[in-house]
Amino acid sequence: MISNLLHPDSIAVVGASNDVRKLRGMLLHTLLLGKFPGAIYPVNPGYEEIQGLKAYASLDDLPAVPDLALLVVPGAVAPQEIEKAAARGVKAAIVYSSDADPDALTQAIGASGLRLMGPNTEGLFIPKARLAPTFAHSVAEVLMHPGPHRNARRSVSIVSQSGGQGFALFGRGLAEKLDFHSVIATGNEVDLDCLDFVEHLVRDGEAGVILMFIEGLKRPERFARVAALAADRGVPLVVLKVGSSEAGRRAAISHTAHLAGTDTAYDALFRRYGVIRVADPEEMLAAAAAFSRLPLVTRANTAIITSSGGAGAWAAELCSARGLAVPMLNPGLQQKIASLIPSFGSAVNPIDVTAQAVEDGGAALAQVLATVVADDQIDAVIVNMGLGVKGRVKGLRPVYEPLFAQSQKPLLFHSHIIPSEENLEELADFGAHGFPSFRACAFALHALSAYGRFQQQCHASRANAQAAREPPSMPHFDVDEEAGGVLGEHATRSMLERFGVPTPPSRLASSSEGALAAARALGFPVVLKIQSRSISHKTEAGGVELNVSEADVEQAYARITANALRHAPNASIQGVLVQKQMPAGHEVVIGIVTDPDFGPLIMFGLGGIYVEILKDVAFAPPPIDRDEALRMIGSLKASPILFGARGRPAADVDALADLLMRVSDMAVAGQDTIDQLDLNPVFVYPKGQGLVAVDALIAVHQRA
Amino acid sequence: MISNLLHPDSIAVVGASNDVRKLRGMLLHTLLLGKFPGAIYPVNPGYEEIQGLKAYASLDDLPAVPDLALLVVPGAVAPQEIEKAAARGVKAAIVYSSDADPDALTQAIGASGLRLMGPNTEGLFIPKARLAPTFAHSVAEVLMHPGPHRNARRSVSIVSQSGGQGFALFGRGLAEKLDFHSVIATGNEVDLDCLDFVEHLVRDGEAGVILMFIEGLKRPERFARVAALAADRGVPLVVLKVGSSEAGRRAAISHTAHLAGTDTAYDALFRRYGVIRVADPEEMLAAAAAFSRLPLVTRANTAIITSSGGAGAWAAELCSARGLAVPMLNPGLQQKIASLIPSFGSAVNPIDVTAQAVEDGGAALAQVLATVVADDQIDAVIVNMGLGVKGRVKGLRPVYEPLFAQSQKPLLFHSHIIPSEENLEELADFGAHGFPSFRACAFALHALSAYGRFQQQCHASRANAQAAREPPSMPHFDVDEEAGGVLGEHATRSMLERFGVPTPPSRLASSSEGALAAARALGFPVVLKIQSRSISHKTEAGGVELNVSEADVEQAYARITANALRHAPNASIQGVLVQKQMPAGHEVVIGIVTDPDFGPLIMFGLGGIYVEILKDVAFAPPPIDRDEALRMIGSLKASPILFGARGRPAADVDALADLLMRVSDMAVAGQDTIDQLDLNPVFVYPKGQGLVAVDALIAVHQRA
Repeated sequence: MISNLLHPDSIAVVGASNDVRKLRGMLLHTLLLGKFPGAIYPVNPGYEEIQGLKAYASLDDLPAVPDLALLVVPGAVAPQEIEKAAARGVKAAIVYSSDADPDALTQAIGASGLRLMGPNTEGLFIPKARLAPTFAHSVAEVLMHPGPHRNARRSVSIVSQSGGQGFALFGRGLAEKLDFHSVIATGNEVDLDCLDFVEHLVRDGEAGVILMFIEGLKRPERFARVAALAADRGVPLVVLKVGSSEAGRRAAISHTAHLAGTDTAYDALFRRYGVIRVADPEEMLAAAAAFSRLPLVTRANTAIITSSGGAGAWAAELCSARGLAVPMLNPGLQQKIASLIPSFGSAVNPIDVTAQAVEDGGAALAQVLATVVADDQIDAVIVNMGLGVKGRVKGLRPVYEPLFAQSQKPLLFHSHIIPSEENLEELADFGAHGFPSFRACAFALHALSAYGRFQQQCHASRANAQAAREPPSMPHFDVDEEAGGVLGEHATRSMLERFGVPTPPSRLASSSEGALAAARALGFPVVLKIQSRSISHKTEAGGVELNVSEADVEQAYARITANALRHAPNASIQGVLVQKQMPAGHEVVIGIVTDPDFGPLIMFGLGGIYVEILKDVAFAPPPIDRDEALRMIGSLKASPILFGARGRPAADVDALADLLMRVSDMAVAGQDTIDQLDLNPVFVYPKGQGLVAVDALIAVHQRA
Repeated sequence: MISNLLHPDSIAVVGASNDVRKLRGMLLHTLLLGKFPGAIYPVNPGYEEIQGLKAYASLDDLPAVPDLALLVVPGAVAPQEIEKAAARGVKAAIVYSSDADPDALTQAIGASGLRLMGPNTEGLFIPKARLAPTFAHSVAEVLMHPGPHRNARRSVSIVSQSGGQGFALFGRGLAEKLDFHSVIATGNEVDLDCLDFVEHLVRDGEAGVILMFIEGLKRPERFARVAALAADRGVPLVVLKVGSSEAGRRAAISHTAHLAGTDTAYDALFRRYGVIRVADPEEMLAAAAAFSRLPLVTRANTAIITSSGGAGAWAAELCSARGLAVPMLNPGLQQKIASLIPSFGSAVNPIDVTAQAVEDGGAALAQVLATVVADDQIDAVIVNMGLGVKGRVKGLRPVYEPLFAQSQKPLLFHSHIIPSEENLEELADFGAHGFPSFRACAFALHALSAYGRFQQQCHASRANAQAAREPPSMPHFDVDEEAGGVLGEHATRSMLERFGVPTPPSRLASSSEGALAAARALGFPVVLKIQSRSISHKTEAGGVELNVSEADVEQAYARITANALRHAPNASIQGVLVQKQMPAGHEVVIGIVTDPDFGPLIMFGLGGIYVEILKDVAFAPPPIDRDEALRMIGSLKASPILFGARGRPAADVDALADLLMRVSDMAVAGQDTIDQLDLNPVFVYPKGQGLVAVDALIAVHQRA
């Protein structure tokens, strides 16, 4: 079981040696440095004693069955050692070797129930459990020179497929005075994968924020469930995922055989579950510090207090670039601040208290901070001053500490000149954090407010959950084998009707007179479309005529049936569909695409050029509710067009949101059948006048 | 003169004191720490001796006229001290006070010829000249603990309006082992501004790369000339400029009264002169390290060599995000590399040599590096390995150093775990650089290749300069006072004709019969437009009819003249312009806008939504040549539409480039007259079929 791995009572180290410069010795050495409280059994037939412990010739010789076996053996022999361990009743093992054959390991595990971490891993570290089965230098380093323990809002855990990146991040985090619950490097994941560990940590309840470095997921279909669990427990997931570039995907595959998956689908899932996606390790550490040290917010009107006007301008610029508001302060607040600072300072925001205010001991800066924190206009404060001079934070701590402790607003510190260790340590000592750059400050506030808003939405949608409606079930349909899984017009229409997707009024006609009668009933102009199971690309077959007038209906009927027979001489023709020609409206495209990893995604965009050239498209996994539908609509760069920009009438956005929800219903109900839906175009009419899906294509899974 | 400031023989310190904890003492202290070789005269009536030097009661008592006077006095008395200095014949002064009145200082300078730096400055530092008139801590620090001198390709200079940011950047740069030619903080710039210093540094020839931190330019019209000079001498300018956000602009104004200017115009100028714009201090240091240590390239196919597969994937991702190619290596190269690394590594790129290859001493990594550097496919290499372990670089130096010295390709080093000082120092010792993040590596390569390509273009356009044609001169025109500077149809048409802008065939008619005759000569359908100096908004006045057929010409003539008279009863009507109605083509918009700081800019975009909602617009300062015109066209996100995307015929891009050049001619010739030109829409026809400016508006400067 995974708990044998993370909370073992006893550990065997198979392949341990005395040479601490080599991995085989280093592993036991680190385990001992960690002061693991349970039994440790070195296993190596060549020795009586290893690093001061009694050694055993084989697992069979141990006085008791260990909870966990660590294998530091050549890759070639790892499978047989796993087999032995399983036979002995060992329930968990870590295989470190980079060159062990994954298939042989899987075979060796068989049905034994043994859970395996690795191969090609650097192991893990859980400080509180004094568990350090790793040869990572950064762990040995911290065990030899442990820092002070500090209380954090959330303790940080790293779950990384790459040991190199995971433990490097750990080392950098320690240098930034972060406290860690755990570091877990999952390696090539032949058995246990990163989601297993994340799920365990979330259920376990000790890790307050989890940083994931992933190249791809072995079983992506489980991601939604694990992410939903984390969201439910309020544990932010911060993810650094390779795969937005071809070169990154290539690297991921060649490195640990992870398929990076479709980045679009990952992004859509991340948005749905409030996952904070970061672009580099610096952003990851900024998010970790934020969640670990600071309260969440749902709004982030940011004040910047600085002792350097130039730095303040720069902070404002970087905050704005990250989408944070740095509002001009209200006149009353400006007035209060102006009375506290020199006349050549500035009270607008950024607030330039001037270097003089700091050189004078910092009382002015502290008063300004207290004033700003107390004002409702402001939700978060970045405090910038030089922290190079010894004793600077110590001197201001009597003011900073109570403000920091009592405030429900995030207070972030940054020094534009290189800060001294002593000042950073002093900040950390009362729970504050010295961020290494304004970019990091801005990212931290972005993460806190994005996650704060996400949690608020979660509560709102839980409250609305009772009102959730059951989607209709799938209607029966015949798969059109000849058309490669594309449904015929009739099946398509009944599917759309079942889910309430508006389509143009239409009738099936089987003669030219019938077509004329149908058209008269519908009103002119009309569209005629050939109906034949053998013809799936109607336009190419000359089987469609648009804008047909009363005078031309009968000839048009004759033309397209003739075209169809010329195109497919043996086609059986069911007739001609006569549809009312719909007036043009705002053109949009709505669809369902099936991601190979994550299943169905709802797609939304404006027509043609916007989707194909400008790539202005939104994706979301179903189900989507009204809020989510409105978010999708608003997320397009071109969305002002729908809201009435450039003098065009505003589109019926309510009807559009409604249609997105209906398509979402269809995706949920059709999970196992629908491979692709394409409503293209949908004409959206002015506010209150609804919309219509003019053309539709549904393809079903070939297995369906 | 500015040279008295940067290369003084003697310095007076007005207001100097013995208390080195206060600015007045600190300034002299730092000057002395710097071992300034010339005479230093403390001036303060209260002392016989200050910090071991003979003190003087006033400037008049000095034994000689100093080259440079430093004023550390209360702001209120600074102007009178400047007056005294000027009277004594001092040629340059620095005023440090934050609260000195700029106008009083300007008045004090009068016509004396004294050049003033500041006020509100932290001073400057030129290590080689042993000149340190500054109270910045980072300078005192480096003077007390000087590092080794290293030879660099380019020495780095910082010119910053903000002293806080300038000297903080200097301190961070020193920690990254950079070597500096100078740091200059220009403060509030009542006299000398940052462009004065940049120009001096470029002419002087010692600074090889100049980092500018600017909030706005006092005299932006000089920027183009100084940037062109730097481009000509091959001195890269790296600029961190506030102003892309409202909050940043507000900060700049309140801080040093700099108007940040139009960011669009700055960007257009920066592109023209090859200025590297950076988004934060981290990018600035990355660019500084790149130019200082590494050769330029014109192509940046990048190889990544790593000891950690995870780090390699991440490096590939960040390089791609910055637009660098990380190509799959050619099969032959892959094969060579595969023979040098363990089987569980990867030779595709990123090249994962595995941790084992490094633990084994690094010979394999070095061989891989040599192999990659020798291959034509690759232009630049990022070498990633853990540099935490003592002696790692020292051990590999025998391989790295000659490779680094002989290669014309940039080799960049990065350690994903925190590197030791010793390893970084060892790298710097042979001229290499340990970049602090992959993001920094990617930015460095972006800067080297962007500037490399820019220099290549400069050479190409110098070679083409002989072929440059003289633009036509401005035609005579009458300013239409009533229309607020908007030219009438006749003046507009003659202006467009003079510069060769194609317009629809048209004739002026003064009767309905005349209109019919004109229309018959032109061909139907036609457009009729009222011609009256009193009516500038023709459409609103009912003075335009489109798509007029032969049957309707005479009535249309009557309608619009009647409308016009109803709209403006006293209007004198010159007649009606009859224009051929042009067939629709690709719609584009071309214009001239006048930036208040930089003068005319050429604007180009696709019609309507693309410009107004998607902000997909390109700007460039005139003159523009064909290459620049084609770059503008290709820079639009929607440009694939012009090149024939989505089945539409490709537009006549050659004609479009030609029109952009003609508009550029117009902007150059009309520099002092044209305030705005708007060709909207221009119909661009398929390849070979030209284009036509269907509608045009020209506004002239009110002073013209």
